[in-house]
Amino acid sequence: MTVSDYLFDFLVSQGIKHVFLITGGAIAFALDALHGRKDIEYICVAHEQVAAMAAEAYSRVGPGLGCAIATSGPGATNLITGICCAWFDSIPALYITGQVNTYEQRGADPGTKGSRQIGFQETDVVSIVKPVTKWAVQLDKPENIRLVLEKAVFLAKSGRPGPVLFDLPQNFQRVKIDPKKLPRFIPPKKKLYADYGTSLSGKINQTLKLLTSAQRPVLVFGTGVKLAAAASQAKILIKKIGIPVILTWGAYDLLEKTHPLLVGSAGVYGNRGANFAIQNSDLILSIGSRLDTRFTGGKPSHFGRAAKKIVVDIDKDELSKRRGLIPDIEINCDAAVFIGKLLKKIQHYKKQKIDNWLEKCADWKIRYPAVLPQYYQEKKFVNGYVFIKTLSEELDSKSIIISDDGGHLTWTMQAFEVKKGQKLFSAFGNSPMGYSFPASIGASFALGKKEVICIDGDGSIQMNIQDFQTVVHHKLPLKIFVLNNDGYAILQQFQETWLGGRFVAASFNQGLSNPDLIKVAKAYGLKTVLIRNHQELRRKIRKVLKAKGPVFCEVKINPKQRLIPKLEFGNPLEDLSPHLSREEFKANMIIPPLAESLEVSPSV
Amino acid sequence: MTVSDYLFDFLVSQGIKHVFLITGGAIAFALDALHGRKDIEYICVAHEQVAAMAAEAYSRVGPGLGCAIATSGPGATNLITGICCAWFDSIPALYITGQVNTYEQRGADPGTKGSRQIGFQETDVVSIVKPVTKWAVQLDKPENIRLVLEKAVFLAKSGRPGPVLFDLPQNFQRVKIDPKKLPRFIPPKKKLYADYGTSLSGKINQTLKLLTSAQRPVLVFGTGVKLAAAASQAKILIKKIGIPVILTWGAYDLLEKTHPLLVGSAGVYGNRGANFAIQNSDLILSIGSRLDTRFTGGKPSHFGRAAKKIVVDIDKDELSKRRGLIPDIEINCDAAVFIGKLLKKIQHYKKQKIDNWLEKCADWKIRYPAVLPQYYQEKKFVNGYVFIKTLSEELDSKSIIISDDGGHLTWTMQAFEVKKGQKLFSAFGNSPMGYSFPASIGASFALGKKEVICIDGDGSIQMNIQDFQTVVHHKLPLKIFVLNNDGYAILQQFQETWLGGRFVAASFNQGLSNPDLIKVAKAYGLKTVLIRNHQELRRKIRKVLKAKGPVFCEVKINPKQRLIPKLEFGNPLEDLSPHLSREEFKANMIIPPLAESLEVSPSV
Repeated sequence: MTVSDYLFDFLVSQGIKHVFLITGGAIAFALDALHGRKDIEYICVAHEQVAAMAAEAYSRVGPGLGCAIATSGPGATNLITGICCAWFDSIPALYITGQVNTYEQRGADPGTKGSRQIGFQETDVVSIVKPVTKWAVQLDKPENIRLVLEKAVFLAKSGRPGPVLFDLPQNFQRVKIDPKKLPRFIPPKKKLYADYGTSLSGKINQTLKLLTSAQRPVLVFGTGVKLAAAASQAKILIKKIGIPVILTWGAYDLLEKTHPLLVGSAGVYGNRGANFAIQNSDLILSIGSRLDTRFTGGKPSHFGRAAKKIVVDIDKDELSKRRGLIPDIEINCDAAVFIGKLLKKIQHYKKQKIDNWLEKCADWKIRYPAVLPQYYQEKKFVNGYVFIKTLSEELDSKSIIISDDGGHLTWTMQAFEVKKGQKLFSAFGNSPMGYSFPASIGASFALGKKEVICIDGDGSIQMNIQDFQTVVHHKLPLKIFVLNNDGYAILQQFQETWLGGRFVAASFNQGLSNPDLIKVAKAYGLKTVLIRNHQELRRKIRKVLKAKGPVFCEVKINPKQRLIPKLEFGNPLEDLSPHLSREEFKANMIIPPLAESLEVSPSV
Repeated sequence: MTVSDYLFDFLVSQGIKHVFLITGGAIAFALDALHGRKDIEYICVAHEQVAAMAAEAYSRVGPGLGCAIATSGPGATNLITGICCAWFDSIPALYITGQVNTYEQRGADPGTKGSRQIGFQETDVVSIVKPVTKWAVQLDKPENIRLVLEKAVFLAKSGRPGPVLFDLPQNFQRVKIDPKKLPRFIPPKKKLYADYGTSLSGKINQTLKLLTSAQRPVLVFGTGVKLAAAASQAKILIKKIGIPVILTWGAYDLLEKTHPLLVGSAGVYGNRGANFAIQNSDLILSIGSRLDTRFTGGKPSHFGRAAKKIVVDIDKDELSKRRGLIPDIEINCDAAVFIGKLLKKIQHYKKQKIDNWLEKCADWKIRYPAVLPQYYQEKKFVNGYVFIKTLSEELDSKSIIISDDGGHLTWTMQAFEVKKGQKLFSAFGNSPMGYSFPASIGASFALGKKEVICIDGDGSIQMNIQDFQTVVHHKLPLKIFVLNNDGYAILQQFQETWLGGRFVAASFNQGLSNPDLIKVAKAYGLKTVLIRNHQELRRKIRKVLKAKGPVFCEVKINPKQRLIPKLEFGNPLEDLSPHLSREEFKANMIIPPLAESLEVSPSV
């Protein structure tokens, strides 16, 4: 058995049924061990960026760990943007890179450390990716293959998860080893609760005490709840304590839209209702969210300013950041452990009478829908919000939906009405153009070549369009909806606000252009559908969803369509733009509004 | 005047007429300063990788410095593979990335350093690219804009050149500055000759002494000669000393193929004649080459083993590496300075009678052409060598030719017959799939939208195929020749040698596939031409070259076509495979062949 045979045995043991890759000189020996294997399939992509993003989404969908493999040098560096997606969204993923022979590397011979390159396509990928991985390591000797792989996967999955990179020199790839004699990795005793000072039990008591006395409490769930596989426990918790729930984008699919306690998702592009709920609350229990400024607004000191805040985060560095948002109780703990222990003590929880508050939140949810009636009156194009709402109405409970970035991501996260069982995500933290399509490839394989709904933009789809070939080659039943608005809507909106509407590099009369995407999709052999207006919208969405195999569907969006509502920088979270009339705004505020909000001239 | 206005004034002052970019939130303020400017054009590309590679090629073609601009996070990380091209081939280039506001960055507030991300799309690109840049720096305060830009460009261009990255926080982009009050960079006195011990003059005397006494001297020119703008001096030197010349791939276009003293290019995929010349020489004067193992062969101790070696390199780290190849005289000096000073002393150079040696070298050049007569007999497909030779016959002296990597790069570097005035290059050190096409875009802009000949492969062209749109948008007269052999020929050859011909992930029955490239090119709006066989080869090449505007030309290459000759690992440089008969081989050796070469059973 060679090191490479061991490598793939190990991957299989991790539930990895597919690896995404491009071959090359420095990895060809390793990949040869794939020859004839039936227990793992390799997927040849056309750009390593696709391999990296597909692997990351493979992990998100589970149950196996995502894995991408590339050769040294450019193969390795092409992975980095995908690695960043896994890093910022805490997704465990394993990146394997071939490397030149150890004796050909910089530093192997005296005097060679200062050279830029000794071996062909030698690149120090380990140093390069260190800032965006939990661990990046080159195998130091063949016998350590088990130790290093076990440690890498342990680190990727434990604590706050994230990507790891394993760099495998060519000359080690063919070394014979005795799998029984390999040193193994002894994982440290898992420290699920790492809090300092007060014990977890004490903090849970404090949490319960605050929950019982709060008049206007809200629960905030973040990605950490999903990462800790605590979704069902979270639902039990909601049922037991019966308080309004707000979701971050990372946890958007945790609850169905119709759940009576769900207000919505809050943030800079949040639902007005969810933002009002957060801002008027007197207690926020946040579990598994890093409380990023896209969620809190640009001035974290304004976030839930009337509320006590209990923040549960597995990453103590996220708890200890001080940006105006100071938790009253910090709990450095895994979301599943915290919720589990909280549930055990919940019998002592005496439910407050908070009916008014529940009614208020329910009213906000209804009063401020994302999709306004007038959006349906668009004649020449499809309205982005109407598209997302219609699509979500047509999708069944098993759908996986992956959205990209910018305008169409925002429309999705504002208007998509999640059904029980659906999964919906994007690479929220890194937010690259061109994620959703490769991610859809990865997710489809993770599910055994099942259907995935890919929501993309005209700028984004171009980023990795070459891998239409991978979709066609494997007949993956992706439904790729490209919301084409002839440019970067989110940037244009930013330019309208801050830069006098000068659309430098963001619109068609300012240097940008698109190909005829339908023609390109056809050239790759994809079925295509074009949706031009509302009249044909539902019929054609159904046509796409009914079709077997992959379909590319272009949806013509009004280039002037903007992201509504949006928090302009400097405003507190409750005061989204377009501003409500000050009467309406004040009527929604239980706590005193900030003086500047009252001065704002409404923009609706 | 804002920092951003200053930035673009500065770029213009560096001869930069075009910048390659994609906009995004963290760079939009800076790019707004481009609005209405007539002295610099921004080129919107569809993937930042294209911007990075186009900028690098813009520098190669000159006279301006290449510059690519991207937003923070994924925009920045998408540049990296292109940055590596500049790093490994010593190309000065300026990479500018937007960054989140300084007050939103990790570390700006207490306790935030350990977070993975604070600002939206915040990524520590400076740390990530440090290993592959001469300098990567974030602007620390607006007033330092001049100082930092001047230093960055100085470092990019001085000594051994390379890429620099300048990270510009959003909040600095709109700060007003007084350009007259900015601190400036005072360059250190240029140290053109950094040698230790003996003075340059002494070493030049030693060089001349060795040159006058050598019986079989050769001159080796590397990229450094081009980078030091010493090409014309090098030609004077050749004329004065009249000894055979060998070129590395990086300096392949330094001399026309018909130059009487040029033997060819040596190396692992070298011309047999050039390799014989190197290996039989008694003196090698190498100027501006790092003597990489692709040039010396895998065992550097076998390289020119009968020769004294004088090695001139601007990078002392390249001189001091010890891998079996020990220079007799090391000269740490800029190529232009060295050649200039050598020329001044050349009157003392008493030319040896080396007519036999010159004849031998000239004979080798004729006896071992890259393109063998039998290649023309290919019926069903086009032979890669025949294509390159025919193309080079049809190109005029002003052509710029950029080749990609792998098989078609090798065929180019073995068979292309350079004419005076032509430029031919690739990203040799990094050698990514997908370089030549973006590089052709950059080179075309550098030349004022002139024609560029792009030689690409079927695997490579897919990597950045989205930017067909950029070519069509700007009507760039690129002639894109894709040598389509249904897979990765160079990998297959490797797999035949080492892996029993198992073409895992490298051939069409092993997981790989291509789209119909002609269809895809057409979908983007490119004119297309298909060349299927030798009969139509010359006629259709002429058709492509005569057409106005961009043309995509697919050339059907036999998938079984291999790279010939090639040095198999372990063999000395003179003994390329397929091996010559031992009689013929011995007849070519003036110095004693190695015992192992005599034992090799010939494979022809």
